[in-house]
Amino acid sequence: MKLIIDAMGGDNAPLEIVKGVVESLNARDDFSVILTGQLKAVEEELSKYDYPSDRVEIVDAPEVISMDEHPVEAIRKKKNSSMVVGQLLLKEKKGDAFITFGSTGACLACAQLRVGRIKGIIRPALAPVLPNKNKGVMLIDCGANMDCKPNNLAQFAVMGSIYMEKVVGVENPKVGLASVGTEDAKGNEVTKEALALIREQNLVNFLGNAEGRDIVDRVDVMVSDGFAGNFMMKGLEGFGEFIISTMKKSFTSSLRCKIGALLLKPALKELKQAIDYNAYGGAPLLGIDGVVIKGHGSAKAKTVGPTIDQAIKIVQADVVGIIKENIPKMTVNE
Amino acid sequence: MKLIIDAMGGDNAPLEIVKGVVESLNARDDFSVILTGQLKAVEEELSKYDYPSDRVEIVDAPEVISMDEHPVEAIRKKKNSSMVVGQLLLKEKKGDAFITFGSTGACLACAQLRVGRIKGIIRPALAPVLPNKNKGVMLIDCGANMDCKPNNLAQFAVMGSIYMEKVVGVENPKVGLASVGTEDAKGNEVTKEALALIREQNLVNFLGNAEGRDIVDRVDVMVSDGFAGNFMMKGLEGFGEFIISTMKKSFTSSLRCKIGALLLKPALKELKQAIDYNAYGGAPLLGIDGVVIKGHGSAKAKTVGPTIDQAIKIVQADVVGIIKENIPKMTVNE
Repeated sequence: MKLIIDAMGGDNAPLEIVKGVVESLNARDDFSVILTGQLKAVEEELSKYDYPSDRVEIVDAPEVISMDEHPVEAIRKKKNSSMVVGQLLLKEKKGDAFITFGSTGACLACAQLRVGRIKGIIRPALAPVLPNKNKGVMLIDCGANMDCKPNNLAQFAVMGSIYMEKVVGVENPKVGLASVGTEDAKGNEVTKEALALIREQNLVNFLGNAEGRDIVDRVDVMVSDGFAGNFMMKGLEGFGEFIISTMKKSFTSSLRCKIGALLLKPALKELKQAIDYNAYGGAPLLGIDGVVIKGHGSAKAKTVGPTIDQAIKIVQADVVGIIKENIPKMTVNE
Repeated sequence: MKLIIDAMGGDNAPLEIVKGVVESLNARDDFSVILTGQLKAVEEELSKYDYPSDRVEIVDAPEVISMDEHPVEAIRKKKNSSMVVGQLLLKEKKGDAFITFGSTGACLACAQLRVGRIKGIIRPALAPVLPNKNKGVMLIDCGANMDCKPNNLAQFAVMGSIYMEKVVGVENPKVGLASVGTEDAKGNEVTKEALALIREQNLVNFLGNAEGRDIVDRVDVMVSDGFAGNFMMKGLEGFGEFIISTMKKSFTSSLRCKIGALLLKPALKELKQAIDYNAYGGAPLLGIDGVVIKGHGSAKAKTVGPTIDQAIKIVQADVVGIIKENIPKMTVNE
């Protein structure tokens, strides 16, 4: 298995990305990597570590796409960026999956323009798995599609279900349609139509409408337009950080509290991990004709490993192939 | 000041509602109440307590609207329900504000059909204040309007800003428009138009686009359509409960942890309060020509007090009057 990794993408690149890749290479021996990025910078980072050099190839990509560039323009102009070079390698089957921690917009635009959609998939979706009481919940879409049509949502339901079953190992994943209540009448114009479509399509274990709180334990896949999904995901991230910072403040407010917090240190670490949005790796871009994963821009070395593990699982499970098999069964396709 | 309170609304009514009202009557003496509900049931609950009976009036309303009834039908059919009777009393100016912990849909429908909108406000909004690092953040709308138009959002911005300034005491509240990033180009078709409208209207301290995480400290008012707002709010509620339950589990996993948790008990209580969605009272229905507050259906007696305090503040601040004054300044109105 060969993974193509954008060494320049993310707030802490290339330092943390290269470090994480090396740690992962030393931890498991069933994969090799192509790193795309500025040759010298990547070589310099690599030189800091002991690693199996026969499993690492660097493909020079002198340009870097920054977080605030216009996605489509950046992809068109910066043909020699680590993002474009990496995804073109994926397109040419020089690797089995592409991972980036760079700009979400650029990753999306590049995947659509350079790798391309699976034939029949109308819109790909950005679909992270968020921590919950069970094995996690996939929120699909989380930002690739602002204005969704009912048939987009119906396809997301199928792709999300395939992912949660084949990659995360959830048996017969429970799929919910994001709404404001569980009754059929609840929702907006788009979700009301989507509800009927997903039922009619009959390809997933569909619970019908779901509400925000259902991400905690009622559904394994939450189907949403990318606007509400992204708003929710970032809200949860912020709220999680707010709780952790409030906790820190009150846990250091007196000697008594400090001693208590010291005793609870392992439990607090466990808690932080349980609500850590990076623990499940990055967000796969489902519907692209290739495995593309967008990791969190703030990724540190320890985040890279789970993302690599995730990429390997997606390739091994042949998620792209299974989505393709399901296209003819969909009542809606392009 | 006289408050009209639906004694039958909510999962724990009339028991917890009446108990909370009595506690509040005994805690502050600047208001009296009209309780609407089944005379006998309310009297029976009241008889359990010592309270200033000259400040309590019961208006019999033999019918009760349950949580799962169709809102508009229920309002039309159950003319003698505590919800309808209470809001009609508000309309007739027999009281200064109406509070219910019953069905959100029925409360909304009743407010629009029986109390009516402020002239010029196109759509009223359900607008709770959620806990954050500052004085709280108003999420407007949170479920009254599934499909919003840009001019609805522009009006929500003004109403939310007035509320946070006059009731919560935030000076020059920072208003953000819910989106998926802070750049102007981010968002869906409706928010892109709304962004321009709110700027053009120039009635609030507008930061432009905001993202989910900005509820934590960057904005005081988050303007959103009711679909995304409701999805987010319930997601945060669920996530908060998930964190608390994960915490409980890991804090009781060993003797060491148990001792630590015991020492941290006051701090944990503080934390729970800091993220408690009921601490700020209920959600006001802004844009209605009268003060209507929808409290959480799961309200217990201790939640009733803050909601009464909130109602009194809204009446004293004359939020409805100030919204009316602003109508002619809006570039968009009915």
